[in-house]
Amino acid sequence: MALESLVGYNLKRAYVILQNDYRAVMGDHGLSPRVFSALTFVVETPNLTQSDLARRLGIERSGLVAIVDELEGRGYLCRVAVPQDRRVQALSPTDAGVQAYEAALKLVHDHEDRILHTLDAVERAQLLHLLKKIRETGE
Amino acid sequence: MALESLVGYNLKRAYVILQNDYRAVMGDHGLSPRVFSALTFVVETPNLTQSDLARRLGIERSGLVAIVDELEGRGYLCRVAVPQDRRVQALSPTDAGVQAYEAALKLVHDHEDRILHTLDAVERAQLLHLLKKIRETGE
Repeated sequence: MALESLVGYNLKRAYVILQNDYRAVMGDHGLSPRVFSALTFVVETPNLTQSDLARRLGIERSGLVAIVDELEGRGYLCRVAVPQDRRVQALSPTDAGVQAYEAALKLVHDHEDRILHTLDAVERAQLLHLLKKIRETGE
Repeated sequence: MALESLVGYNLKRAYVILQNDYRAVMGDHGLSPRVFSALTFVVETPNLTQSDLARRLGIERSGLVAIVDELEGRGYLCRVAVPQDRRVQALSPTDAGVQAYEAALKLVHDHEDRILHTLDAVERAQLLHLLKKIRETGE
Protein backbone atom coordinates (compact mmCIF):
# COMPACT_ATOMS: atom_id res chain seq x y z
CA MET A 1 0.00 0.00 0.00
CA ALA A 2 1.70 3.17 -1.26
CA LEU A 3 -0.04 5.44 1.26
CA GLU A 4 1.50 3.68 4.25
CA SER A 5 5.00 4.83 3.26
CA LEU A 6 3.97 8.48 2.83
CA VAL A 7 4.80 10.85 5.68
CA GLY A 8 1.94 13.21 4.80
CA TYR A 9 -0.67 10.45 4.98
CA ASN A 10 0.61 9.16 8.31
CA LEU A 11 0.89 12.70 9.75
CA LYS A 12 -2.71 13.38 8.83
CA ARG A 13 -4.02 10.09 10.23
CA ALA A 14 -2.11 10.56 13.50
CA TYR A 15 -3.31 14.15 13.77
CA VAL A 16 -6.96 13.13 13.26
CA ILE A 17 -6.66 10.70 16.18
CA LEU A 18 -5.28 13.41 18.45
CA GLN A 19 -7.84 15.94 17.23
CA ASN A 20 -10.82 13.62 17.83
CA ASP A 21 -9.67 12.87 21.36
CA TYR A 22 -8.94 16.57 21.98
CA ARG A 23 -12.48 17.51 20.96
CA ALA A 24 -13.97 14.76 23.12
CA VAL A 25 -11.96 15.98 26.12
CA MET A 26 -12.72 19.68 25.63
CA GLY A 27 -16.44 19.12 25.02
CA ASP A 28 -18.89 20.84 22.69
CA HIS A 29 -18.32 24.28 24.18
CA GLY A 30 -14.58 23.94 24.64
CA LEU A 31 -11.85 25.83 22.82
CA SER A 32 -10.92 24.47 19.39
CA PRO A 33 -7.22 23.62 18.94
CA ARG A 34 -6.65 26.85 17.03
CA VAL A 35 -8.43 29.04 19.58
CA PHE A 36 -6.52 27.31 22.39
CA SER A 37 -3.25 28.05 20.56
CA ALA A 38 -4.28 31.69 20.15
CA LEU A 39 -5.15 31.98 23.85
CA THR A 40 -1.75 30.51 24.74
CA PHE A 41 0.05 33.18 22.70
CA VAL A 42 -2.13 35.91 24.25
CA VAL A 43 -1.43 34.70 27.80
CA GLU A 44 2.29 34.11 27.30
CA THR A 45 3.21 37.15 25.17
CA PRO A 46 3.10 40.71 26.54
CA ASN A 47 1.86 43.41 24.12
CA LEU A 48 0.87 40.89 21.45
CA THR A 49 -0.70 42.58 18.40
CA GLN A 50 -3.15 40.97 16.00
CA SER A 51 -0.44 40.90 13.32
CA ASP A 52 1.96 39.15 15.72
CA LEU A 53 -0.71 36.60 16.56
CA ALA A 54 -1.55 35.88 12.90
CA ARG A 55 2.14 35.35 12.16
CA ARG A 56 2.69 33.07 15.15
CA LEU A 57 -0.37 30.98 14.29
CA GLY A 58 0.74 30.83 10.67
CA ILE A 59 -2.61 32.09 9.34
CA GLU A 60 -3.80 35.10 7.34
CA ARG A 61 -4.82 38.18 9.31
CA SER A 62 -8.29 37.88 7.76
CA GLY A 63 -8.69 34.45 9.35
CA LEU A 64 -7.76 35.83 12.75
CA VAL A 65 -10.84 38.00 13.24
CA ALA A 66 -13.18 35.15 14.20
CA ILE A 67 -10.62 33.75 16.65
CA VAL A 68 -10.04 37.07 18.40
CA ASP A 69 -13.79 37.75 18.44
CA GLU A 70 -14.41 34.36 20.07
CA LEU A 71 -11.81 34.99 22.78
CA GLU A 72 -13.16 38.47 23.38
CA GLY A 73 -16.75 37.16 23.44
CA ARG A 74 -15.78 34.62 26.10
CA GLY A 75 -14.28 37.44 28.14
CA TYR A 76 -10.75 36.00 27.84
CA LEU A 77 -9.02 39.04 26.34
CA CYS A 78 -9.27 42.81 25.97
CA ARG A 79 -7.91 45.02 23.22
CA VAL A 80 -5.75 47.58 24.98
CA ALA A 81 -3.79 50.61 23.80
CA VAL A 82 -0.07 50.20 23.10
CA PRO A 83 1.85 53.13 24.66
CA GLN A 84 4.61 53.10 22.00
CA ASP A 85 2.28 53.07 18.99
CA ARG A 86 -1.20 54.51 19.12
CA ARG A 87 -2.15 53.02 15.74
CA VAL A 88 -2.18 49.45 17.06
CA GLN A 89 -3.87 47.64 19.91
CA ALA A 90 -2.47 44.81 21.98
CA LEU A 91 -4.39 41.68 22.94
CA SER A 92 -4.19 41.35 26.73
CA PRO A 93 -5.56 38.37 28.66
CA THR A 94 -8.16 38.90 31.39
CA ASP A 95 -8.04 36.99 34.68
CA ALA A 96 -10.77 34.73 33.31
CA GLY A 97 -8.61 34.18 30.21
CA VAL A 98 -5.58 33.16 32.26
CA GLN A 99 -7.69 30.78 34.36
CA ALA A 100 -9.33 29.27 31.27
CA TYR A 101 -5.90 28.82 29.69
CA GLU A 102 -4.48 27.04 32.75
CA ALA A 103 -7.51 24.74 33.00
CA ALA A 104 -7.39 23.96 29.27
CA LEU A 105 -3.64 23.32 29.31
CA LYS A 106 -4.10 20.76 32.08
CA LEU A 107 -6.82 19.00 30.05
CA VAL A 108 -4.57 19.03 26.96
CA HIS A 109 -1.61 17.56 28.86
CA ASP A 110 -3.82 14.81 30.29
CA HIS A 111 -5.27 14.13 26.83
CA GLU A 112 -1.79 13.86 25.23
CA ASP A 113 -0.46 11.63 28.01
CA ARG A 114 -3.42 9.29 27.52
CA ILE A 115 -3.62 9.22 23.71
CA LEU A 116 0.17 8.90 23.34
CA HIS A 117 0.50 6.09 25.86
CA THR A 118 2.04 3.78 23.25
CA LEU A 119 5.09 6.08 23.05
CA ASP A 120 7.63 6.09 25.88
CA ALA A 121 9.34 9.32 26.96
CA VAL A 122 12.28 8.87 24.58
CA GLU A 123 10.00 8.20 21.61
CA ARG A 124 7.83 11.20 22.44
CA ALA A 125 10.90 13.47 22.58
CA GLN A 126 12.14 11.96 19.29
CA LEU A 127 8.78 12.64 17.65
CA LEU A 128 8.78 16.27 18.82
CA HIS A 129 12.35 16.68 17.55
CA LEU A 130 11.50 15.26 14.09
CA LEU A 131 8.33 17.35 13.76
CA LYS A 132 10.28 20.49 14.66
CA LYS A 133 12.84 19.63 11.97
CA ILE A 134 10.02 19.58 9.41
CA ARG A 135 8.69 22.87 10.77
CA GLU A 136 12.12 24.49 10.34
CA THR A 137 11.90 24.05 6.57
CA GLY A 138 8.61 25.83 6.16
CA GLU A 139 8.01 28.44 8.86
CA MET B 1 6.06 28.44 25.30
CA ALA B 2 3.66 25.65 26.32
CA LEU B 3 2.58 24.92 22.74
CA GLU B 4 6.09 23.91 21.65
CA SER B 5 6.05 20.88 23.94
CA LEU B 6 2.65 19.65 22.70
CA VAL B 7 2.65 16.83 20.16
CA GLY B 8 -0.72 17.87 18.73
CA TYR B 9 0.46 21.41 18.01
CA ASN B 10 3.67 20.24 16.34
CA LEU B 11 1.83 17.56 14.33
CA LYS B 12 -0.57 20.16 13.00
CA ARG B 13 2.16 22.68 12.12
CA ALA B 14 4.24 20.02 10.35
CA TYR B 15 1.19 18.76 8.48
CA VAL B 16 0.27 22.26 7.30
CA ILE B 17 3.77 22.63 5.79
CA LEU B 18 3.42 19.35 3.90
CA GLN B 19 -0.14 20.16 2.85
CA ASN B 20 0.76 23.61 1.47
CA ASP B 21 3.62 22.18 -0.57
CA TYR B 22 1.43 19.28 -1.73
CA ARG B 23 -1.21 21.71 -3.02
CA ALA B 24 1.42 23.85 -4.74
CA VAL B 25 2.85 20.75 -6.47
CA MET B 26 -0.51 19.32 -7.53
CA GLY B 27 -1.87 22.63 -8.82
CA ASP B 28 -5.34 24.15 -8.68
CA HIS B 29 -6.95 21.29 -10.58
CA GLY B 30 -4.98 18.50 -8.90
CA LEU B 31 -6.31 15.84 -6.57
CA SER B 32 -6.71 16.89 -2.94
CA PRO B 33 -4.84 14.71 -0.41
CA ARG B 34 -8.07 12.94 0.49
CA VAL B 35 -9.10 12.29 -3.11
CA PHE B 36 -5.59 11.05 -3.88
CA SER B 37 -5.82 8.66 -0.91
CA ALA B 38 -9.20 7.43 -2.16
CA LEU B 39 -7.83 6.88 -5.67
CA THR B 40 -4.93 4.88 -4.19
CA PHE B 41 -7.31 2.54 -2.39
CA VAL B 42 -9.43 2.18 -5.54
CA VAL B 43 -6.39 1.32 -7.69
CA GLU B 44 -4.76 -1.01 -5.17
CA THR B 45 -7.82 -2.90 -3.86
CA PRO B 46 -9.84 -5.27 -6.04
CA ASN B 47 -13.63 -5.23 -5.52
CA LEU B 48 -13.50 -2.24 -3.16
CA THR B 49 -16.98 -1.17 -2.01
CA GLN B 50 -17.97 2.32 -0.87
CA SER B 51 -18.27 1.05 2.69
CA ASP B 52 -14.75 -0.43 2.52
CA LEU B 53 -13.41 2.85 1.18
CA ALA B 54 -15.08 4.94 3.90
CA ARG B 55 -13.66 2.66 6.58
CA ARG B 56 -10.15 2.74 5.11
CA LEU B 57 -10.19 6.52 4.80
CA GLY B 58 -11.55 6.78 8.34
CA ILE B 59 -14.48 8.97 7.28
CA GLU B 60 -18.27 8.71 7.44
CA ARG B 61 -20.00 7.13 4.43
CA SER B 62 -21.92 10.37 3.96
CA GLY B 63 -18.63 12.23 3.45
CA LEU B 64 -17.57 9.75 0.81
CA VAL B 65 -20.16 10.67 -1.81
CA ALA B 66 -18.39 13.84 -2.97
CA ILE B 67 -15.06 12.02 -3.21
CA VAL B 68 -16.44 9.14 -5.29
CA ASP B 69 -18.40 11.59 -7.45
CA GLU B 70 -15.22 13.57 -8.12
CA LEU B 71 -13.26 10.47 -9.13
CA GLU B 72 -16.14 9.29 -11.30
CA GLY B 73 -16.49 12.77 -12.84
CA ARG B 74 -12.81 12.75 -13.74
CA GLY B 75 -13.32 9.38 -15.42
CA TYR B 76 -10.99 7.64 -12.95
CA LEU B 77 -13.40 4.98 -11.70
CA CYS B 78 -16.55 3.07 -12.62
CA ARG B 79 -19.14 1.52 -10.34
CA VAL B 80 -19.33 -2.12 -11.35
CA ALA B 81 -21.50 -5.02 -10.25
CA VAL B 82 -20.11 -7.45 -7.67
CA PRO B 83 -20.81 -11.02 -8.78
CA GLN B 84 -21.10 -12.35 -5.21
CA ASP B 85 -23.53 -9.70 -3.95
CA ARG B 86 -25.93 -7.94 -6.29
CA ARG B 87 -26.90 -5.39 -3.62
CA VAL B 88 -23.50 -3.66 -3.66
CA GLN B 89 -21.28 -2.13 -6.31
CA ALA B 90 -17.50 -2.15 -6.44
CA LEU B 91 -15.38 0.87 -7.32
CA SER B 92 -13.08 -0.16 -10.16
CA PRO B 93 -10.34 2.07 -11.57
CA THR B 94 -10.34 2.96 -15.28
CA ASP B 95 -7.11 3.05 -17.32
CA ALA B 96 -7.19 6.85 -16.98
CA GLY B 97 -7.53 6.42 -13.22
CA VAL B 98 -4.51 4.12 -13.01
CA GLN B 99 -2.44 6.53 -15.11
CA ALA B 100 -3.54 9.53 -13.04
CA TYR B 101 -2.67 7.62 -9.87
CA GLU B 102 0.82 6.73 -11.10
CA ALA B 103 1.51 10.30 -12.21
CA ALA B 104 0.21 11.73 -8.92
CA LEU B 105 2.19 9.23 -6.83
CA LYS B 106 5.39 10.30 -8.56
CA LEU B 107 4.61 13.97 -7.82
CA VAL B 108 3.85 13.12 -4.18
CA HIS B 109 7.11 11.19 -3.76
CA ASP B 110 9.10 14.08 -5.26
CA HIS B 111 7.24 16.55 -3.04
CA GLU B 112 7.96 14.53 0.13
CA ASP B 113 11.62 14.04 -0.77
CA ARG B 114 12.00 17.79 -1.24
CA ILE B 115 9.97 19.06 1.73
CA LEU B 116 11.50 16.47 4.10
CA HIS B 117 15.09 17.13 3.02
CA THR B 118 16.09 18.04 6.61
CA LEU B 119 15.42 14.44 7.69
CA ASP B 120 17.88 11.71 6.73
CA ALA B 121 16.65 8.22 5.81
CA VAL B 122 16.90 6.92 9.39
CA GLU B 123 14.97 9.90 10.78
CA ARG B 124 12.28 9.54 8.15
CA ALA B 125 11.82 5.86 8.98
CA GLN B 126 11.75 6.74 12.71
CA LEU B 127 9.07 9.35 12.07
CA LEU B 128 6.91 6.89 10.11
CA HIS B 129 7.33 4.30 12.88
CA LEU B 130 6.28 6.76 15.61
CA LEU B 131 3.28 8.03 13.64
CA LYS B 132 2.11 4.46 13.04
CA LYS B 133 2.38 3.80 16.79
CA ILE B 134 -0.02 6.70 17.39
CA ARG B 135 -2.32 5.38 14.67
CA GLU B 136 -2.44 1.97 16.34
CA THR B 137 -4.16 3.45 19.38
CA GLY B 138 -7.00 5.03 17.50
CA GLU B 139 -7.84 3.19 14.29
